[in-house]
Amino acid sequence: MKLNVNPVRGTKDYLPTEMEVRQNIINIILNNYKQNGFQHIKTPILENIELLTGGDSGDNQKLMFKTIKRGEKLNLNDPDLTENSLCEEGLRYDLTVPLVRFYSKNRNNLSSPFKSIQIDESFRAERPQRGRNRQFTQCDIDILGDSTIVAEIEILMTALNTYKAIGFDNITLKINDRRILNSIILTSGFSENNITDICISLDKSDKIGLENVALELVDKNYEKANVDKLISIMQEIKENGISILDKYIQDVGIVENLKTVISILQNNCDKNHKIEFDISIIRGQGYYTAMVFETYTTDYNYTGALGGGGRYDNMVEKISGTPTPAVGYSIGLDPITMIMLESGKCFDNTKTIALIYNKEDNLEDVFDIKQKLVGKYNVSIFKYPKNMSAFLDKLVQNNFYGYTFTKDCLQTDSIENTPIKTFEK
Amino acid sequence: MKLNVNPVRGTKDYLPTEMEVRQNIINIILNNYKQNGFQHIKTPILENIELLTGGDSGDNQKLMFKTIKRGEKLNLNDPDLTENSLCEEGLRYDLTVPLVRFYSKNRNNLSSPFKSIQIDESFRAERPQRGRNRQFTQCDIDILGDSTIVAEIEILMTALNTYKAIGFDNITLKINDRRILNSIILTSGFSENNITDICISLDKSDKIGLENVALELVDKNYEKANVDKLISIMQEIKENGISILDKYIQDVGIVENLKTVISILQNNCDKNHKIEFDISIIRGQGYYTAMVFETYTTDYNYTGALGGGGRYDNMVEKISGTPTPAVGYSIGLDPITMIMLESGKCFDNTKTIALIYNKEDNLEDVFDIKQKLVGKYNVSIFKYPKNMSAFLDKLVQNNFYGYTFTKDCLQTDSIENTPIKTFEK
Repeated sequence: MKLNVNPVRGTKDYLPTEMEVRQNIINIILNNYKQNGFQHIKTPILENIELLTGGDSGDNQKLMFKTIKRGEKLNLNDPDLTENSLCEEGLRYDLTVPLVRFYSKNRNNLSSPFKSIQIDESFRAERPQRGRNRQFTQCDIDILGDSTIVAEIEILMTALNTYKAIGFDNITLKINDRRILNSIILTSGFSENNITDICISLDKSDKIGLENVALELVDKNYEKANVDKLISIMQEIKENGISILDKYIQDVGIVENLKTVISILQNNCDKNHKIEFDISIIRGQGYYTAMVFETYTTDYNYTGALGGGGRYDNMVEKISGTPTPAVGYSIGLDPITMIMLESGKCFDNTKTIALIYNKEDNLEDVFDIKQKLVGKYNVSIFKYPKNMSAFLDKLVQNNFYGYTFTKDCLQTDSIENTPIKTFEK
Repeated sequence: MKLNVNPVRGTKDYLPTEMEVRQNIINIILNNYKQNGFQHIKTPILENIELLTGGDSGDNQKLMFKTIKRGEKLNLNDPDLTENSLCEEGLRYDLTVPLVRFYSKNRNNLSSPFKSIQIDESFRAERPQRGRNRQFTQCDIDILGDSTIVAEIEILMTALNTYKAIGFDNITLKINDRRILNSIILTSGFSENNITDICISLDKSDKIGLENVALELVDKNYEKANVDKLISIMQEIKENGISILDKYIQDVGIVENLKTVISILQNNCDKNHKIEFDISIIRGQGYYTAMVFETYTTDYNYTGALGGGGRYDNMVEKISGTPTPAVGYSIGLDPITMIMLESGKCFDNTKTIALIYNKEDNLEDVFDIKQKLVGKYNVSIFKYPKNMSAFLDKLVQNNFYGYTFTKDCLQTDSIENTPIKTFEK
């Protein structure tokens, strides 16, 4: 029997070289998140369909992997069969909804505010594209239970320090506030109900430009006068920045808070990081209620966001009935690993060597040498190969540092003097 | 709206204290596996149904989570609807089948023999019980492409060193060989076809005793004379050990290899570890072809196996058509984490402190102090709480080391002298 040995469409296998970089990045992120006082938790990949489809799931519902009922619960003869009557659980499409369920269930056992770390996988059946897989890993921090900007600052400072530790020397963090957008949209003559839909169009401005956003809004049958006004305000703010916001925002506290967050971050983080207000940061999800952020870099050939997040003060109440303010930030592991791999970024790891033995060697000796070398090197035993040159090529391809022979090790007086033949890089 | 906030039946949430122990154990295992020359890889959680249901899946098929087709592919009006026609992919029930698919796909890019590490999650809809969840994590090492006992020794030495590093000082590794069992079963008068079924019954002997295994076999309509002979041979080997095997095994190489493996392991591993032949080690899965192993400890209140594995020389050929010998070992992360948590085992981590600020404090100062303390401690910022005693209790419960106040930090001359109020343990 021969089976299809490709991974499922839109998912991928991680080979040792990529996995090493990926794991190094995970370690750096987890370590930095913990240093900054966040606590690591974990929730199951499966959640009840009811939780996943309620509330703000939006488009995610269409992209969800749902698991079929098992055993007697599965009734294929039901005349009113629907997709939902066949399914009981689904694979989560993000880490935020499970976090809110976790918090609602366990809040009495958690410190308050609760500051969580999740490094874990989610699933969306999106059309596969570069750097985007159907199974993907997010590295999230969230603070639940703090309504002040201390939460935003702690989250963003942690994120900026983490990027720096991974090796991003020039990060641009862009901040906006959904309430500013809401205010501009209302000022332009639109109604409260239109806000979400208009934000979905505005979110495309970095890809298609403001003029095309205007065309799209008119196509959607919004009044042209309102659209023109909105676009001209957006343009004005884009050109003049934060200083002009007072003209459009009643609540001066919103702008003051933005300025405080930007100033504290700029003073405390690496001087090469830029922190700036940017009216074009929207974030698609419907659940954001105040500040939203996205992070970019100019150092590498990647124009997408390296991560993002925002404040979502209503979600906990929607799920558990108890109002709780919340802010979160998510680093996308997959694009970051891709960037580091493509740029040849090296991390300083223990070196791996091959210990090559001959058929005639005493096995006791081989394993004795291995035990002694382990710790100084990662040591993998191989039998003397038929084709030495092909064998060594494969070692190089798999990131080995070098190799040695049992025989040579036995002839040296101490393990410190073990002769290692290293590969040139 | 209030939703059910419990995790899906049979799965669990990991709170920070448990997660810390779990992550420490993962780090130790991964580090030891790598030191011993294995390479970390990763495969997707979803696999094609065809792969998961082919071959040796056995009982796992009934326990599998399958995902329903999406969009146009889902046809609920099909008059011949079956479970399989509705499903496209499934969640893997172990890491071995995906590894063999991975190896079959990528073998040209991997070193040979290929020595893999997988630390990852699988899913089985089993009846939930202590230490067993429907989503569970295994830490596997496998060697593909080595037919000699060098592979068994390298795998088992790595496993024993790893248990030691986690904190298990007294490990008993029990080894058997499926070919010995086969030989005894045939000698007793059974036929080749009965072997798998008889092994399933014999596998229960540690729980129900050999006498009850005998009753079960007679119930299954096997001839009583054969059953009696089999049981008496098992009993004889149990009492006399490896020295008596020659009486029943034609191929002396099998017994010689067992002795070599046991002797090299005993000489190279920690002296408190016991390595022994045990005829009662069977392992349920149908795919094992030679040596099988299981590991136990007497140090803690846990009678189940801490891990196990064996040689499975036929599986790669079944999936890819290319014969490839293989040996694997799997450490079950969930029971090990449970044991360590229950025994109060501490790992030496960076200490986490709370930095408590007052409303009047300058936020610039607060974050400046935090940045300076990070690294020496994990630092989490909290506002001065309304109820200090309840607040501190929650910190203790969440494994905090102590706390300090912004004010006190500002009054000390250097960050080295920061006054930390520590919790008594």
